[in-house]
Amino acid sequence: MSFDRLISNIREKQNPTVAGLDPKLDYIPGYIKTAAYDKYGKTLEGAAAALLEFNKGLIDALCDIVPAVKPQAAYYEMYGWQGVRTLAETIAYAKSKGMFVITDGKRNDIGTTMEAYAKAHLGTTDIEGETAQAFGADALTVNAYLGTDGIKPLLEICKNDDKGIFALVKTSNPSSGELQDRKLDDGLTVYRTMGNMCENWGSEAMGDSGYSSVGAVVGATYPEQLGELRAALPHTFFLVPGYGAQGGGAKDVAPAFDKNGRGAIINSSRGIMCAWKKEGCDESEYAQSARREAIRMRDEIVSFIGKIN
Amino acid sequence: MSFDRLISNIREKQNPTVAGLDPKLDYIPGYIKTAAYDKYGKTLEGAAAALLEFNKGLIDALCDIVPAVKPQAAYYEMYGWQGVRTLAETIAYAKSKGMFVITDGKRNDIGTTMEAYAKAHLGTTDIEGETAQAFGADALTVNAYLGTDGIKPLLEICKNDDKGIFALVKTSNPSSGELQDRKLDDGLTVYRTMGNMCENWGSEAMGDSGYSSVGAVVGATYPEQLGELRAALPHTFFLVPGYGAQGGGAKDVAPAFDKNGRGAIINSSRGIMCAWKKEGCDESEYAQSARREAIRMRDEIVSFIGKIN
Repeated sequence: MSFDRLISNIREKQNPTVAGLDPKLDYIPGYIKTAAYDKYGKTLEGAAAALLEFNKGLIDALCDIVPAVKPQAAYYEMYGWQGVRTLAETIAYAKSKGMFVITDGKRNDIGTTMEAYAKAHLGTTDIEGETAQAFGADALTVNAYLGTDGIKPLLEICKNDDKGIFALVKTSNPSSGELQDRKLDDGLTVYRTMGNMCENWGSEAMGDSGYSSVGAVVGATYPEQLGELRAALPHTFFLVPGYGAQGGGAKDVAPAFDKNGRGAIINSSRGIMCAWKKEGCDESEYAQSARREAIRMRDEIVSFIGKIN
Repeated sequence: MSFDRLISNIREKQNPTVAGLDPKLDYIPGYIKTAAYDKYGKTLEGAAAALLEFNKGLIDALCDIVPAVKPQAAYYEMYGWQGVRTLAETIAYAKSKGMFVITDGKRNDIGTTMEAYAKAHLGTTDIEGETAQAFGADALTVNAYLGTDGIKPLLEICKNDDKGIFALVKTSNPSSGELQDRKLDDGLTVYRTMGNMCENWGSEAMGDSGYSSVGAVVGATYPEQLGELRAALPHTFFLVPGYGAQGGGAKDVAPAFDKNGRGAIINSSRGIMCAWKKEGCDESEYAQSARREAIRMRDEIVSFIGKIN
């Protein structure tokens, strides 16, 4: 099952982190942008070309030490279908380098519409007998506000095509509590209730690792809830945003892991993409700078959790 | 403000309905598909070309009587970036024919990521001083599980660019109650709490019509909740899915409207797109058949709500 593949990547590299690919033009070295604009102008196509070049450089520099990448769909859609083409090309490139790809799209809908998203982002599309791959990531983030009808259509693809999903449970943002921290009439919070639903949905799609194909998004900015959920949801693998730029530290994310050092993958986006700016190194070194930051982050987190078994 | 434009379209046509453009290959007449496959093969590009041709025929046949279209992003993403290009072209075509376009993407995220979605789907994208339009719809469906951080980035564009959003409140599917119908410790349901948040967010972006730029998705399959929410949320405009194929009838959607016949727009997707199959007419008449069904639906709903003032 899907998260078995991810967990095996993590163990092999002894690195429970994922590099978020949320490329803004601001983050991209001038020489990459100039080359793209010279060819395509300051257009959606020009921006999309710069994004792809930037991403490829990062993937080349990270693929032997970081197990996964997480492109965030919004930053590609912002550049129209041309940007979305860059998303597809980024996914294909990362996969060709052996990385596990999590598309962060927080998709949600019901029935045949959710099936369409499942085919789009994880599976394959049938065109009257011919099979094509639209985006083909390994995992997708989803929002389960619509209940089981929004998750079931994904489970078939998770099982048959060895893929995974991460449902939003407790998000990293300041206002996540407005709904998620509210208590229901049985005394459980909304986030805990959502977590329990993930555990139930996952029971249909268990992997050899002990984790199912239905993971949960739980923010690094709420370490107490991370610990609560880790204990309550023993088969649910966590994707943890909010490390670094959003304020979560290595100590904060430690409760996301089980006693074997498994159970979670920690995302850093800006920290890695903008390492060259923070370091103040030459822009041509952006990818090597990202690698240095990825190593620093890995070592910092591993120092809290120990060897990943 | 945005829903003023939609409401004015609705009043002008005396038709509170929106045609969902969720094109599956099954729904598309054979001659359209054959032409597309002859040119591009049974590929993502071929499917995307067939979708666009089908949509244009529908838009041509509906634009003088139906105020709005609602393309569902999933059915385009399923065909890769080529499908997403068809989404952009469909939006542009519908707008050129005077229709109000609601992109059904149920997008959700926080901060700068949600800003990126807002620029992508409603606003414009800046490329180092040059402005481009990525998708440029008039409204977008969103999922507010992440709270205010996920909605605020949209409000600026709603106000400045005259756009709107519809947040999921009570969805039309059977399992929507798993979370949405649960009662919080203050006795209010999750959907009602979400509805109240819409009403609050909207207070920053009120239109002359009395409705704000923050609408709500409320399913036709739950008429009682429709009535409850209409009374509780006087400034929140409703997008109502679930009419027709999902089981909601004209009588069921009547409670969504205020005493002036305003306050809601009712979606039909399959009913309109597949009218030619249900009628059994020649496939070359698919667009005229869609028009006949759109008129039938309009007349049926208007017979329950009367003149739209």
